[in-house]
Amino acid sequence: MQTLQIVKIGGNIIDDPLKLEIFLEQLASLKNPVILVHGGGKSASTLAKTLGIQQTMIDGRRVTDAETLNVTVMVYAGLINKTLVAKLQARNCNAIGFCGADGNLVRSKKREFQGIDFGFVGDIVENGVHVAQFQELLNKALIPVISPITHDGCGQLLNTNADTMAAKIASALCLFYDVSLIYCFENHGVLMDIKNQESYIPELSHTQYLTLKNSGIISKGMIPKLDNAFEALGSGVMEVKICHAEYFADSSTTFKGTKLTRS
Amino acid sequence: MQTLQIVKIGGNIIDDPLKLEIFLEQLASLKNPVILVHGGGKSASTLAKTLGIQQTMIDGRRVTDAETLNVTVMVYAGLINKTLVAKLQARNCNAIGFCGADGNLVRSKKREFQGIDFGFVGDIVENGVHVAQFQELLNKALIPVISPITHDGCGQLLNTNADTMAAKIASALCLFYDVSLIYCFENHGVLMDIKNQESYIPELSHTQYLTLKNSGIISKGMIPKLDNAFEALGSGVMEVKICHAEYFADSSTTFKGTKLTRS
Repeated sequence: MQTLQIVKIGGNIIDDPLKLEIFLEQLASLKNPVILVHGGGKSASTLAKTLGIQQTMIDGRRVTDAETLNVTVMVYAGLINKTLVAKLQARNCNAIGFCGADGNLVRSKKREFQGIDFGFVGDIVENGVHVAQFQELLNKALIPVISPITHDGCGQLLNTNADTMAAKIASALCLFYDVSLIYCFENHGVLMDIKNQESYIPELSHTQYLTLKNSGIISKGMIPKLDNAFEALGSGVMEVKICHAEYFADSSTTFKGTKLTRS
Repeated sequence: MQTLQIVKIGGNIIDDPLKLEIFLEQLASLKNPVILVHGGGKSASTLAKTLGIQQTMIDGRRVTDAETLNVTVMVYAGLINKTLVAKLQARNCNAIGFCGADGNLVRSKKREFQGIDFGFVGDIVENGVHVAQFQELLNKALIPVISPITHDGCGQLLNTNADTMAAKIASALCLFYDVSLIYCFENHGVLMDIKNQESYIPELSHTQYLTLKNSGIISKGMIPKLDNAFEALGSGVMEVKICHAEYFADSSTTFKGTKLTRS
């Protein structure tokens, strides 16, 4: 099967013009089909604050009231998505930007109230990734650039975690491609010591992850990221890597970062 | 040739929830291939005002500084575009939202300084409409929903007039389709008396238009709209209609509004 690289880029890279340029330069150099999934960065929080919309985060996830949803749609599906597309087009990459509503690419369901009301947050439904639509785009040598906004099919846009979005798309497409899922962010991988970038774990199994989570070495935002990543690996994704956005395209022999392993 | 309907919807309809629903219901009922081009409405001005960004309009066109450009990208390519897509998807229309940067669909050039500096405003370049890309989308029974943001191919997004965008797309595609270009807005057509909706002109030739413009009966925002419309008609577009968003899909025998004529 053909290799498909699904690259997820986090907010701290999007917010840093120089790091973003280095990342996009690498992305443009890739030969295989690629899907780019992007997160939000600080712009949404900044805009919400300027507009006087109170923001609440629970376990690193944004509580999305109607006004906040509008902000995320504007910033993620609008400003960030189109800025990335224009920058890739300038590098002769035929990027094409989407949210999950476009062409019904990713369908979700408003999260049910379970003690915490996350508001307009969408969890991707079973078979919610429109595989044939992605295949058609990739067959045309287009580079889909995906913002983490989904829809419920009944006219409601929903805010969805970008790490989850990348993992679900990877899981859905791995029947048709050898999928390499790469989470790019501002650290050099999963770190043993958050203050030392050289302390990244080169290979991490699920068992090791659980041990490190229980001991508190892996904590906070890394937990949902790794939960998503291991779920994707378990569903048949060929490889999952977590690394700095500046090094993600390095060949496997020189790869610097964390590679997840099944065993 | 197959008929293609290119429907442009104005801001006053987008801003009115009830009118918008009636419009979308009609759009969803169309049998032919359709492209929807949308304008901005008051949301961009409202957001800019809330953010303290001073807005300047010259001849109905927004002067677009860097901050205003971000606002237009957020509102047009983000909020309005994705809201329309989600609402059409809910009606089983396979809508897919784009700005001009996506898939290099519409390329423009920053307007040169000619006495007035419009800032980040883009004029669509010759052959700037990516005809093959539009054809592929239409062949897949997708409904492209186009926001009036373009790019210069060098990484810069640009704000482009939505009426012009619709006209240029219509002109570019009329070699391959019998294009019907329909400008939908809040009036019942081109009016002889702006205060009387029943005073719409059923048929308007270019000569009549020039006479009415010189006499001041046609003025303000109608002038660039009609300039765009007659240019499209002159370039080979099969028909151009200007009508209320609630009646645009009526059959030609019962059509209520202004139809432009070549003679």
